[in-house]
Amino acid sequence: QETVCIFGTGDFGRSLAFKMLQCNYSIVFGSRNPQKSSLLPHGAEIFSYSEAAQKSDIIIIAVHREHYDFLKELTEVLKGKILVDISNNLKINQYPESNAEYLAHLVPGAHIVKAFNTISAWALQSGTLDASRQVFVCGNDSHAKQRVMDIVRTLGLTPLDQGSLMAAKEIENYPLQLFPMWKFPFYLSAILCVFFFFYCVIRDIIYPYVNSKKDITFRLAISIPNRIFPIAALTLLALVYLPGVIAAILQLYRGTKYRRFPDWLDHWMLCRKQLGLVALGFAFLHVLYTLVIPIRYYVRWTLKNRTITQATAKTQDLFSTSTAWLSDSYVALGILGFFLFVLLGITSLPSVSNMVNWREFRFVQSKLGYLTLILCTAHTLVYGGKRFLSPASLIWYLPSAYVIALIIPCTVLVIKFILILPCIDKTLTRIRQGWE
Amino acid sequence: QETVCIFGTGDFGRSLAFKMLQCNYSIVFGSRNPQKSSLLPHGAEIFSYSEAAQKSDIIIIAVHREHYDFLKELTEVLKGKILVDISNNLKINQYPESNAEYLAHLVPGAHIVKAFNTISAWALQSGTLDASRQVFVCGNDSHAKQRVMDIVRTLGLTPLDQGSLMAAKEIENYPLQLFPMWKFPFYLSAILCVFFFFYCVIRDIIYPYVNSKKDITFRLAISIPNRIFPIAALTLLALVYLPGVIAAILQLYRGTKYRRFPDWLDHWMLCRKQLGLVALGFAFLHVLYTLVIPIRYYVRWTLKNRTITQATAKTQDLFSTSTAWLSDSYVALGILGFFLFVLLGITSLPSVSNMVNWREFRFVQSKLGYLTLILCTAHTLVYGGKRFLSPASLIWYLPSAYVIALIIPCTVLVIKFILILPCIDKTLTRIRQGWE
Amino acid sequence: QETVCIFGTGDFGRSLAFKMLQCNYSIVFGSRNPQKSSLLPHGAEIFSYSEAAQKSDIIIIAVHREHYDFLKELTEVLKGKILVDISNNLKINQYPESNAEYLAHLVPGAHIVKAFNTISAWALQSGTLDASRQVFVCGNDSHAKQRVMDIVRTLGLTPLDQGSLMAAKEIENYPLQLFPMWKFPFYLSAILCVFFFFYCVIRDIIYPYVNSKKDITFRLAISIPNRIFPIAALTLLALVYLPGVIAAILQLYRGTKYRRFPDWLDHWMLCRKQLGLVALGFAFLHVLYTLVIPIRYYVRWTLKNRTITQATAKTQDLFSTSTAWLSDSYVALGILGFFLFVLLGITSLPSVSNMVNWREFRFVQSKLGYLTLILCTAHTLVYGGKRFLSPASLIWYLPSAYVIALIIPCTVLVIKFILILPCIDKTLTRIRQGWE
Ligand SMILES: Cc1cc2nc3c(=O)[nH]c(=O)nc-3n(C[C@H](O)[C@H](O)[C@H](O)COP(=O)(O)OP(=O)(O)OC[C@H]3O[C@@H](n4cnc5c(N)ncnc54)[C@H](O)[C@@H]3O)c2cc1C
Ligand SMILES: Cc1cc2nc3c(=O)[nH]c(=O)nc-3n(C[C@H](O)[C@H](O)[C@H](O)COP(=O)(O)OP(=O)(O)OC[C@H]3O[C@@H](n4cnc5c(N)ncnc54)[C@H](O)[C@@H]3O)c2cc1C
Ligand SMILES: Cc1cc2nc3c(=O)[nH]c(=O)nc-3n(C[C@H](O)[C@H](O)[C@H](O)COP(=O)(O)OP(=O)(O)OC[C@H]3O[C@@H](n4cnc5c(N)ncnc54)[C@H](O)[C@@H]3O)c2cc1C
Ligand SMILES: NC(=O)c1ccc[n+]([C@@H]2O[C@H](COP(=O)([O-])OP(=O)(O)OC[C@H]3O[C@@H](n4cnc5c(N)ncnc54)[C@H](OP(=O)(O)O)[C@@H]3O)[C@@H](O)[C@H]2O)c1
Ligand SMILES: NC(=O)c1ccc[n+]([C@@H]2O[C@H](COP(=O)([O-])OP(=O)(O)OC[C@H]3O[C@@H](n4cnc5c(N)ncnc54)[C@H](OP(=O)(O)O)[C@@H]3O)[C@@H](O)[C@H]2O)c1
Ligand SMILES: NC(=O)c1ccc[n+]([C@@H]2O[C@H](COP(=O)([O-])OP(=O)(O)OC[C@H]3O[C@@H](n4cnc5c(N)ncnc54)[C@H](OP(=O)(O)O)[C@@H]3O)[C@@H](O)[C@H]2O)c1
Ligand SMILES: CCCCCCCCCCCCCCCC(=O)OC[C@H](COP(=O)(O)O)OC(=O)CCCCCCCCCCCCCCC
Ligand SMILES: CCCCCCCCCCCCCCCC(=O)OC[C@H](COP(=O)(O)O)OC(=O)CCCCCCCCCCCCCCC
Ligand SMILES: CCCCCCCCCCCCCCCC(=O)OC[C@H](COP(=O)(O)O)OC(=O)CCCCCCCCCCCCCCC
Ligand code: HEM
Ligand code: HEM
Ligand code: HEM
Repeated sequence: QETVCIFGTGDFGRSLAFKMLQCNYSIVFGSRNPQKSSLLPHGAEIFSYSEAAQKSDIIIIAVHREHYDFLKELTEVLKGKILVDISNNLKINQYPESNAEYLAHLVPGAHIVKAFNTISAWALQSGTLDASRQVFVCGNDSHAKQRVMDIVRTLGLTPLDQGSLMAAKEIENYPLQLFPMWKFPFYLSAILCVFFFFYCVIRDIIYPYVNSKKDITFRLAISIPNRIFPIAALTLLALVYLPGVIAAILQLYRGTKYRRFPDWLDHWMLCRKQLGLVALGFAFLHVLYTLVIPIRYYVRWTLKNRTITQATAKTQDLFSTSTAWLSDSYVALGILGFFLFVLLGITSLPSVSNMVNWREFRFVQSKLGYLTLILCTAHTLVYGGKRFLSPASLIWYLPSAYVIALIIPCTVLVIKFILILPCIDKTLTRIRQGWE
Repeated sequence: QETVCIFGTGDFGRSLAFKMLQCNYSIVFGSRNPQKSSLLPHGAEIFSYSEAAQKSDIIIIAVHREHYDFLKELTEVLKGKILVDISNNLKINQYPESNAEYLAHLVPGAHIVKAFNTISAWALQSGTLDASRQVFVCGNDSHAKQRVMDIVRTLGLTPLDQGSLMAAKEIENYPLQLFPMWKFPFYLSAILCVFFFFYCVIRDIIYPYVNSKKDITFRLAISIPNRIFPIAALTLLALVYLPGVIAAILQLYRGTKYRRFPDWLDHWMLCRKQLGLVALGFAFLHVLYTLVIPIRYYVRWTLKNRTITQATAKTQDLFSTSTAWLSDSYVALGILGFFLFVLLGITSLPSVSNMVNWREFRFVQSKLGYLTLILCTAHTLVYGGKRFLSPASLIWYLPSAYVIALIIPCTVLVIKFILILPCIDKTLTRIRQGWE
Repeated sequence: QETVCIFGTGDFGRSLAFKMLQCNYSIVFGSRNPQKSSLLPHGAEIFSYSEAAQKSDIIIIAVHREHYDFLKELTEVLKGKILVDISNNLKINQYPESNAEYLAHLVPGAHIVKAFNTISAWALQSGTLDASRQVFVCGNDSHAKQRVMDIVRTLGLTPLDQGSLMAAKEIENYPLQLFPMWKFPFYLSAILCVFFFFYCVIRDIIYPYVNSKKDITFRLAISIPNRIFPIAALTLLALVYLPGVIAAILQLYRGTKYRRFPDWLDHWMLCRKQLGLVALGFAFLHVLYTLVIPIRYYVRWTLKNRTITQATAKTQDLFSTSTAWLSDSYVALGILGFFLFVLLGITSLPSVSNMVNWREFRFVQSKLGYLTLILCTAHTLVYGGKRFLSPASLIWYLPSAYVIALIIPCTVLVIKFILILPCIDKTLTRIRQGWE
């Protein structure tokens, strides 16, 4: 039975003690006023800071950084001990140096290990460790780090060694982050949506109003979103595969893979996953919006009135096989594209991607990914069909929105097609050799 | 090459030996009749119990608890050895003490470790470890526990330290459980469904039958479920966020977070995840039932006949912009609500939630969760639209079912709105400080 | 700070060094021409092969197997050291013996450990370890293996002990595999699709063309796939549960569970998960294809014209309650079946199945699985409804495709029903006892 000392009887100190007692550790608290309180977990002892420090060689500092000063006076007692810094800040990069490094300066003789700061006191106490169980650990002394990692593992958490104490800054920033990799995709898609929103409002709402005084603002609820979302999905999907193509051109041009890509390209390549998932979200919305079309009052009303008009006039449309072909094929292409899209999404799930090897992962993400892009682009092209680029569909000189949406995907596909021509492909493969 | 001894040549003993031999252990069986059988895995040796025990200091007891008595006689030989208890029972809490503790009484000098009982013999043998790979381990001697956990890890399984031998009872009950956390959500939703089933049958089937002798029992297949399921979804979703609101009121009233919540509230808060997922299931069903509406014979027939009637009478309905707005908006709200609902579901997947930090997890679950609730409630309110609370929609003094369904969500939203008023929120934040 | 030596300054050597330096190891390169290059990660030293070998007792051989010969001359220096073989081949089973065993022959005195071959250089360097983080490790010396596994763990990867060096062959083949377990399901479903494609083309396209010269080839886009996919889904679903039934009959016949199943049955049983997921994919496609039915031009045209015809003739169809019942029930059955199908899919996700115990997993997979099969079969039966087996639906003596599709599911369900009759079930349970 190992004894661990915890400095500070605050929320986190108590929760951690509670959990560690469950896992068979014996706990000694160090406190400013060492009196047993009913809040302390049953089984823990409590002493003054200096007394408590002598009972164990691992001391967890469950105190805010602002109150670390008292540790300076304990330097003697803490010499050679393992001090675990678990503190968090309120803002990213709040202090010039990380809390752990600050602690290392305060108590020179001790081995400082950063850990546990990503775990919430409430989660420890209530047992609902639903969010991350990963505990990032760093420190300069590898033996000390090992000891702490053993404790982490015993508590049922997953320790992740992050190297030397220099990593503490990053570890302290981690719990303050809110989806950093999703920021770029998010803003990008917001811009796309806003742009296409105004574009479609002008073409589909303002123009009819100006031209024929028809109030069709109700289109804002479904028709307009069902233009914006698929266009955003298609554009984002193309933007997922664009950086790979740019990288290839760059490597071909440079003749080597050993020069770093420009920063913007690097960052872009690292958030392709997030871009792709956002695209999937938009595609999902597009599918839902499309499937409710026949339920809409407007659609039912239109269909009914058209039928009544024809019935009254006793005329019937002729069946057009080519329209049937076009209409059925673009829908079928959309369905197949969406299906592969969902497959890409499923293989992005961390637990699934962890089960496949590199070859399989890249087969799905790269090969099936391009197939998805092809199918979705074809879906839009065939949807455009006969009207595509016809001058009649220009409104105030503006082409239909989907025509604009097709520019990037078609560009990506054309360049990719050139890149896989045998002669170019061979050069590229030779350059890239050794990466996988 | 470590030697491990297994007592008992039954199914589990053999399967475990088979797996351990694959991982380079050498295996010695102890048996009542020590003769090589063709069933024993190739490479294992077999001896009498007492002989076998001398060959190794780790002994796995692959024998049913009912036959443990013979171990008593081996007390001498087993002194200081590590005995691994892997036994299961047939019923939860079948015996007053756990099997492992019983074994500890029988063989006082040995170090007892509980492990492996959650793994099935068939899974070990066939290699399809599809269900849990987690092996819960407990024991009083930490060195012995460590040895066993090393073996577990070598076999490709995940050891989870559960503390002292007192945890054995819980570990033994674990494989006998059938979704314990899902019981309450399941029964609750069953009750909801039954109640609303009868409510809707009375309003939508019995009343028309009594009033106008119309046989519309076929509504039982789709129309009625498509009332019950969304109502259950909405109610359950509201019940997910109700306990948080109650907890806040309680904490405000008490002025401290340090008094425990009543048991029912605690339990309720711990199964919110399950409640939410069941709600998602119902919402999914609602969406499917809604999307098939235009395929239904009844709907097609109605639409056709209405058109024919109007065509014959040569009248056309006027287009109502306000109806178009209402119809499109409630559908759009439903789609957006469902989309966020699915996002909540995705972040509940263990592998995804393990990748996000607390702040991100609570952002999705709490902020987006409330947004989902708002959208779904708005969807229902706008669906009600003009008919909402109109006396004409009362049938036998009963309001429409969705009016009842709106009570809890609206209550939750109103209280939550009060709680986030700056003055109250500040007090609450002060009280809760330190939990995350 | 541990020192690790890496032989070879190629892509993999450098990437690994880069990662290990981040994790606080100190790195020494061995190279043919030991001169510092700007490509080498900052902080690493470089020597000749023999010099470098003396600096550490762990040496990672980041050299292609084809160039191993120079190691022979270093035999003396390498005596007693741990050599980590990380090499891959270009083809499965390219050499008669595995690279690691070949290395062991070349350098007799060293401890060979196979590891790291599943990790891509690019992934190490860029940090996007999206595919598998699992590192399979094998070797004859357990201490050496332990050392390597510690390194693996420190790098944030998951080591999996695979036993002795004999496992190296399999480990080397692993990264060259492309979904081996999915091959059989894939080919099977391809065959099914092709067969039913021609079957349906004959019945639904060629026959009308021959008979009445109608060009309805546009059906190839949606109508025909929407026959093929659900039929494939249903058949595959039945084939998931067929082997269990065959196994039961075999065990009943043999009276024991201890005789191995024939190989084909074994293999079939091991790829039931994949079969089931492919079936889910087809079912998903069927659902999408079904939900777009009302959007199709052909369907709208047909409905409109039928309405106009009736309106002109001033007739109205009578409402048929039995048709309403049949139509609504088969759709409802389909929806419920699909819902359970999706649940089965969700529990197959590795992270979810890892959270449930055996009893729960088998409850979902076996009980709910059969319920899914029953619902889907009933869906098809009721869809057939009155036309089912009616001679009028025979075309060129061929029955409707779904009639053929029903053969296997019905057979499975009937046999299963017989197997769970109390008398037979008791015998079977007795035979199988001890497996879980
Ligand atoms: C729904 C959806 C989900 C997605 N999920 C993910 C995800 O989970 N993870 C993810 O990473 N992406 C994901 N993506 C993004 C995308 O599918 C992948 O990034 C895909 O691999 C890009 O393929 P590519 O052929 O353009 O890349 P590449 O052509 O491979 O990219 C070109 C450059 O990248 C380098 N490179 C990239 N990977 C490797 C490698 N393994 N070995 C050697 N060199 C390499 C090459 O050197 C080359 O310079 C997702 C996309 C979508 C639409
Ligand atoms: C589809 C779906 C899926 C869901 N999946 C999950 C899931 O995977 N996991 C899950 O837990 N819930 C899940 N839920 C339930 C729900 O979303 C969460 O419980 C949500 O966090 C509740 O938010 P709240 O704002 O009401 O909670 P809170 O307002 O946080 O609850 C109030 C009380 O809880 C305490 N509390 C709760 N969490 C913390 C914390 N981290 N730190 C400090 N104090 C805390 C506070 O002290 C306070 O007393 C799911 C719901 C749905 C609909
Ligand atoms: C969408 C979908 C997803 C699926 N995902 C999975 C998956 O993730 N993993 C998976 O394995 N299957 C999966 N399946 C396949 C299928 O659901 C399971 O294989 C299911 O357990 C078969 O049930 P059964 O009753 O026919 O098997 P059984 O009747 O159990 O099979 C009969 C034989 O198997 C032996 N047996 C099998 N399992 C056990 C056990 N645990 N203990 C003792 N004996 C056993 C019995 O001895 C018996 O001889 C999936 C199927 C679908 C449709
Ligand atoms: N709460 C969480 O969820 C969480 C999560 C990760 C990390 N952390 C980190 O854990 C540390 C403690 O957090 P906490 O929530 O436990 O805080 P807390 O409840 O405010 O407790 C802080 C404790 O520090 C001690 N202390 C020593 N000198 C002090 C001084 N001059 N003024 C005030 N307190 C002093 C006090 O214990 P005595 O009275 O016994 O001396 C006090 O109980 C923080 O660094 C925090 O960032 C917390
Ligand atoms: N790249 C990957 O993604 C990856 C993944 C898993 C496994 N692997 C394995 O790692 C090993 C190395 O792959 P790599 O991609 O790093 O290959 P590489 O870039 O071609 O490097 C091979 C290195 O081997 C050394 N070498 C020694 N004798 C040699 C000789 N006679 N001819 C050529 N080179 C010689 C060279 O280093 P010096 O010039 O310094 O002597 C050279 O840099 C291979 O076995 C490969 O299968 C690679
Ligand atoms: N099967 C599973 O999937 C599984 C999973 C987890 C845990 N377990 C646990 O593993 C233990 C063994 O299960 P099992 O399925 O292997 O049972 P089993 O097939 O019935 O084997 C029990 C073995 O116990 C030995 N034994 C010693 N004294 C005995 C006596 N008086 N009567 C009968 N047998 C005696 C026998 O081996 P000798 O003839 O060689 O003496 C016999 O083969 C049980 O505690 C069970 O709860 C099983
Ligand atoms: C029908 C299609 C349904 C698609 C649903 C829409 C999906 C929208 C995608 C957005 C997902 C964002 C998750 C955010 C959580 C997060 O940040 O999670 C954060 C983590 C880690 O992120 P970092 O890489 O930034 O660290 O990301 C993940 O792990 C993302 C995994 C997401 C997987 C999405 C899987 C979609 C699966 C679809 C399966 C569906 C079948 C459906 C069939 C109908
Ligand atoms: C289209 C939406 C599809 C929604 C499908 C319906 C979902 C129904 C939810 C019920 C799931 C129950 C799983 C039971 C297994 C279990 O008990 O699992 C048990 C485990 C552990 O349970 P405990 O917390 O009780 O220990 O639970 C889980 O881990 C639950 C994770 C479930 C995650 C559900 C995710 C839904 C994801 C939807 C992704 C979809 C994209 C779809 C887009 C169209
Ligand atoms: C709406 C339903 C949506 C269904 C979507 C279609 C699913 C198609 C299934 C094919 C999945 C193949 C994955 C291939 C990756 C792989 O090879 O992965 C390989 C790994 C490991 O394979 P091995 O067992 O062969 O080693 O397999 C898996 O882990 C498979 C897990 C797949 C889980 C599928 C889950 C479907 C979940 C649906 C959730 C949805 C809710 C949707 C609600 C609307
Ligand atoms: C189930 C799958 C799908 C179906 C049934 C489907 C159906 C449709 C339909 C009916 C339209 C015409 C909408 C209208 O009339 O306003 C359309 C348009 C479009 N779809 Fe899809 N689609 C699917 C998937 C996708 C996917 C995955 C993408 C791309 C990522 C996509 C991209 C588009 C685009 C860009 C348009 C043109 C939008 C416009 O300007 O009106 N679709 N789709
Ligand atoms: C894709 C998403 C959705 C769509 C298209 C949709 C559509 C509809 C439609 C068409 C109706 C009217 C049904 C009828 O006429 O009988 C309805 C009713 C309703 N919906 Fe939704 N909905 C969606 C999502 C949701 C969600 C997520 C919830 C709540 C959790 C919800 C809750 C309700 C409720 C409570 C009703 C009233 C049921 C009644 O009494 O008839 N819906 N929805
Ligand atoms: C949301 C769920 C489902 C709905 C709404 C649905 C609906 C339908 C509809 C409308 C048809 C008739 C198609 C036609 O007229 O051509 C059909 C046929 C069929 N469905 Fe489903 N279904 C569902 C799920 C399933 C599932 C899960 C399966 C089986 C795995 C299945 C198997 C079949 C089969 C075998 C047919 C007959 C195909 C033929 O020969 O035409 N369905 N379904």
